[in-house]
Amino acid sequence: MGLEDKIRKVVPYVPGEQPKESGVIKLNTNENPYPPSPLVREAMERLQADRFRLYPDPAASELVSELARTYGLDESQIFVGVGSDDVLAMCFLTFFNSDSSILFPDITYSFYDVWAELFRIPYEQIPLDENFRIRPEDYMRKCGGIVIANPNAPTGRLLPVPEIEKILKANPDCVVIVDEAYIDFGGESALPLISRYGNLVVVQTFSKSRSSAGLRIGYAMADPKLIRYLSDVKYSFNSYTMNMPSIKLGAAVLRDSAYTEKCIAKIIRTRENTAAALRKLGFILDDSCANFLFIRHPQIPAEELFRGLKERKIYVRWWNKPRISSYLRVTIGTDSEMEAFLSALRCLLTDRK
Amino acid sequence: MGLEDKIRKVVPYVPGEQPKESGVIKLNTNENPYPPSPLVREAMERLQADRFRLYPDPAASELVSELARTYGLDESQIFVGVGSDDVLAMCFLTFFNSDSSILFPDITYSFYDVWAELFRIPYEQIPLDENFRIRPEDYMRKCGGIVIANPNAPTGRLLPVPEIEKILKANPDCVVIVDEAYIDFGGESALPLISRYGNLVVVQTFSKSRSSAGLRIGYAMADPKLIRYLSDVKYSFNSYTMNMPSIKLGAAVLRDSAYTEKCIAKIIRTRENTAAALRKLGFILDDSCANFLFIRHPQIPAEELFRGLKERKIYVRWWNKPRISSYLRVTIGTDSEMEAFLSALRCLLTDRK
Repeated sequence: MGLEDKIRKVVPYVPGEQPKESGVIKLNTNENPYPPSPLVREAMERLQADRFRLYPDPAASELVSELARTYGLDESQIFVGVGSDDVLAMCFLTFFNSDSSILFPDITYSFYDVWAELFRIPYEQIPLDENFRIRPEDYMRKCGGIVIANPNAPTGRLLPVPEIEKILKANPDCVVIVDEAYIDFGGESALPLISRYGNLVVVQTFSKSRSSAGLRIGYAMADPKLIRYLSDVKYSFNSYTMNMPSIKLGAAVLRDSAYTEKCIAKIIRTRENTAAALRKLGFILDDSCANFLFIRHPQIPAEELFRGLKERKIYVRWWNKPRISSYLRVTIGTDSEMEAFLSALRCLLTDRK
Repeated sequence: MGLEDKIRKVVPYVPGEQPKESGVIKLNTNENPYPPSPLVREAMERLQADRFRLYPDPAASELVSELARTYGLDESQIFVGVGSDDVLAMCFLTFFNSDSSILFPDITYSFYDVWAELFRIPYEQIPLDENFRIRPEDYMRKCGGIVIANPNAPTGRLLPVPEIEKILKANPDCVVIVDEAYIDFGGESALPLISRYGNLVVVQTFSKSRSSAGLRIGYAMADPKLIRYLSDVKYSFNSYTMNMPSIKLGAAVLRDSAYTEKCIAKIIRTRENTAAALRKLGFILDDSCANFLFIRHPQIPAEELFRGLKERKIYVRWWNKPRISSYLRVTIGTDSEMEAFLSALRCLLTDRK
């Protein structure tokens, strides 16, 4: 057996482009168009570079305690990681450790099957219905675990909490992860259920509603027992995942929820205006509970729009994948970014006539 | 099969204590006693909090290119991660992917067996000889891979590069990881061998010689082919591991190698003076090529000294493990910290008479 045979070979997740050229309108990775709270800048000015010589607090207590305060939880119910991707990867490794297939939708966050492949977790992708809805009854059967993005990505569709509760009730023997990366943009969180369901893990992130993708902070909330298992795996992987700046600046982000709420309200307003304008242009789209819209045009191929927009330095997301190749996912930017996006679309539509 | 049966349960690595009380002399986690270069503070002042709303560069190019410049390598030969623990964990997951046992010494960095357990990699711990030396010939046999800390931890002993080359030559069919966390304190790096041995991975860190444990930066250097496999696994785990502050501040650290060299020289001087003083006090210790000393006293149990020092707010490391339970590992601090440590020892020795 040679060197190559001993190496794990995987097809990695491909994140949205991070273009380095300037003047780009970036509507492709669901970042927040508004900067983080001014408290972050203040906290940065108070960071003591001299202390960087020391290891950070492995428990990231300052950050965890602000999260506990924010959500009215006990610190033992919270786990933090390097973005929700790190948290979800650790959850997959910890909770999906059996020979039974885990379940998730065929159209969803495209990292789920990548993690399953990486950790050799058997999985089954359950087709969404013809309207891209999750049917809870599809998830009421013996399985190794369940992961659901809510609102779902890239569709933006929300599954109401009572439907999630049905799934939890039907699956007491496996962990159900609800990935709520986009929940703050109009959805209702399943978080209140963690005290009643010992099999629920709710995962959220600082990258979207909290304007801090660059800091890489995600967190899981669950029964303390599940959090303990998760922490044990994390401490078996890397004792110190959160660096000093992320702990301090993350805590500062949480101290300004008024600011976060204000930005969210603006984004929701922009989203609704953009959705209305797109419908006027003939696009077909459902209501979104996220900071993006999932749109298609009945006549024009999505790939063509994707390339046309890119030529105009407007980046959106398009996947050459079954069932969704006629769609674009468009992040909600500022009002003026969305106007530029709409004008570009108008040009592309006119050029075609 | 119930919920609990589907959960991965592990015994985690236990890092050295990070005491929160003040006035402590911390000689227990091999941190650098000197703050990072003043360039780090400057770079911090230039960080744009407004940009934290965006994802960081997934390739961490600014940091990788400074590493390439520092070591005269191509960027394709470099991989970065959240501390060398993250890098090593990714290496284990990527390169030790067979049913053959991997090999490492019985006395070494105590994370190796934890990673092997976590990822279910079969392993064999090869006893160091009676002088705590690695015998290269023990590693010249069929195996799934090899990992060697050089200088070894917690012994501080160095394996000369020609000996490492023998191991590389004897094992063309598996990856050999040389974990050089402490190499800058007097050892010779195996790095020049990466261009000749496609099975060598050299791992280093910012946490020790570069005074930046709080930033969590580690890196691997190897043939571009190995780096590509490693990156694929990393991108299947978390696209954006390095946050914006770590990329920017890490690059600043590398721009001041003169400062790093100066701190290293001071630490080596302090180490040699401390070693001489300890020998005078009756301690037995070998020469160390790291920023710590591995010491024992022929009469006094290490645990007793460990506790006595802790009462005096001086933290060192002691393991209740076979073969090394009579030893203490003592990080080299500043001259005045080491004087306080030596006086405390003198008191403990006197009290005992």
